[in-house]
Order: sequence, then structure tokens, then C-alpha cells
Amino acid sequence: MRRFVIIGQRASASPDFSLADLAGSSGRLDVLLRCLRAALLVSHGLRRDTVVYLVLLGGASAPRSLRIDGASARFLRPDERSLALLVQKSLAAPVAGAGFSLVRPGVAVANEGLAAVLADLGPCSPYLLEEHAPDLREAALSLADPVFFLGDHQGLDPASGARLAALGASAIGVGPVSVHADDAITLVVNELDRREAASG
Amino acid sequence: MRRFVIIGQRASASPDFSLADLAGSSGRLDVLLRCLRAALLVSHGLRRDTVVYLVLLGGASAPRSLRIDGASARFLRPDERSLALLVQKSLAAPVAGAGFSLVRPGVAVANEGLAAVLADLGPCSPYLLEEHAPDLREAALSLADPVFFLGDHQGLDPASGARLAALGASAIGVGPVSVHADDAITLVVNELDRREAASG
Repeated sequence: MRRFVIIGQRASASPDFSLADLAGSSGRLDVLLRCLRAALLVSHGLRRDTVVYLVLLGGASAPRSLRIDGASARFLRPDERSLALLVQKSLAAPVAGAGFSLVRPGVAVANEGLAAVLADLGPCSPYLLEEHAPDLREAALSLADPVFFLGDHQGLDPASGARLAALGASAIGVGPVSVHADDAITLVVNELDRREAASG
Repeated sequence: MRRFVIIGQRASASPDFSLADLAGSSGRLDVLLRCLRAALLVSHGLRRDTVVYLVLLGGASAPRSLRIDGASARFLRPDERSLALLVQKSLAAPVAGAGFSLVRPGVAVANEGLAAVLADLGPCSPYLLEEHAPDLREAALSLADPVFFLGDHQGLDPASGARLAALGASAIGVGPVSVHADDAITLVVNELDRREAASG
């Protein structure tokens, strides 16, 4: 199973953003939605072996987290508005207790941030996507249970960075140019696809 | 200079689509807008060495084409709605005569399809992105003046395919999984970035 965790420093943890001005009203949730598409969607389908976590650290309800599981999610479309509507509806669902609660098929919400995600992940091989880090094409990558952590367009907040350092996440980079987070995910996914194909 | 040509079989050539239902009302122009982002935008900026053509073969005004030049375009934001608004305003501008006419800084419109694009490209090294084609990581790629042609989520229409075959475009693939067109562009751009960095 492949898992991706995208941490949005100001991404809205509450559903009170406008679909007509997503980039302006949601703390740049649009960045995270593009990451979701890059990780989970392929031509005419979903990657059933992939789980995406969005950590939402912005707005009055923060922190909260979403988990979208490619094995059981349904009706995901690649356009940003459709994905924004899915997140908005999921964030509006009542959630109680600790950890992740399922709010629709394949989609769960937690009233916590990175702590809930790390508890949910359990044992795994953690990687942190960073600029200028060792190239993923040359890196040893676990194909069994890799987890890739990414910041948003502003990078990582210091608290999240410290947690991931404590977790022992290996830093990897995707190339010589500083690209959008969703492009970095596309490049990681392609590298994993290639290695899985090569290993039969 | 790097150039990308994305051919939308049903993408709207007229501005009469709804921003509130882009995927449903524009002949899947959203697919082409994601390609535009992948080709032209990097973290906090534009790729000044890149030009993107969108060939719009859908709707009453078809065929028409757009050209977006990273060297002179301004105010491009990565979210789909912003890019859709840019395309909508550009398609609404009056354009007369043959070939591309500038309708705003860096953005030009032609009242023709692929023929206008091929005339505008001039001499170049053409490549066609295709599934199951030879891997781009192993391919000889021109760094001087490559042009990459892509279909949309439905592939290429037969007429466009025949034109590109006549042009002698080399087929290249991006990996073992069938991915979205924007992901394919991200993978091409990364390969070019790596080769340029390696060649100094």
C-alpha cells in the first residue's frame, strides 16, 4: 500500500469556503486537492492501492484531517471543483471521538491533525519530500509500505517538521527544479510504478 | 524552448461554458487546463522557456486554438477556475485573419485547429506521447526545440493522429501505468529538467 500525507498550513479545516473562490477562501485547499488527484487518480479510474491523508491546519476548526482510501472511495472525479465539493461535504459531517470516523465510502475525518494521522499509519517506511534532498531515482524505496509526507506551497510548519524528523523520515527530492506539490507526487508515483513493474 | 500541444477532441472552442460546471459544460476543458498548469507553472512562478498550445475541437466555434507563452504571460494562477477564466476571456476576444492573434499578454487565439499550430511551430523535433510507446527515460530527446503532442482523456482523433504521423513525430511513453495527460506532461518536464541540469 502507498500512502501520501499532505500538510496544509492554512488549508481550511471547516467547510465554510466558497466553491466559486476556492483558492481565495479555503487557505489554498486547492493545492491539496491537486495533490489528491495526482496520488489517487489514473486514466479512467482510481489507484486501489493508495491512501491519501490531508492535514488541515487552517481556520477556526483546525486542526482536522481527512483520509481518502482508493480501495473504497467512489465517484471521485479529477476536476478541482468536484474534489472540493467532496471535501466540503465530508468536513460538514458530524464526527465525534478520537481518531478517524468514516463519513462516506472511503472517506474519513478526524478532529485532530498530524497526531491522528501518525497514529492511523502505524508502522511504515516514512519519506519526506524536500527540495535539494537526495534524488528519488537513486533512493532505496520500500515498495511494501511507503508513506510520503509533503508540505503545501509554503513548505512545512516547524511543528510538523519536528514530528517528521522524530519519526526518522528519509528526505527525498524529485529533481533540479522546485515544482508544485502535486507534480512531486506524480513523480513519486511514477517511480513506484516503474519499480513495481520491474520487480514483477 | 519547450512546447506542448494538447488536443481536446470535444473541448469547447467558444467561451459559453460555465465556470460552476467546467467539467460538465466545456467538453472537458478541465483536462486541458490541468495540462496547462503542469507544463507552465512551477513553485511560485512560470516556466519562461515553455509555450503551450491548446487545440479546441469541440462546440459550435470549433476548431480554434490557444497559445500561452510562459515568456510573456502574466497573472497565471494554478487553480482550475483561474485558468478557466483566462481561457474564457481569451476565447471571447474578437480575432480576425489567419494564424494566431494576441488577445492579452502572452495569450494568442487562432480560428483554426492543428493546422494553425503546425504552421506556428515551424521546424521542430516532434514527439507524440502515447501509452506503451518507448520509455522517455531511454529516448533520445532534443533539448533545443522539442514539441510534445498529447491527446485528451479520449486519446487522439484519427485526423490529428494522421497529421502527426505525417509530421514524423516520435512516439514516447512515460511508464507502465496509464496516467492522466497532465501527469504525462509533468513526467516529460521533469525528464527535460534533469537532462538540462546534467548537460550544464
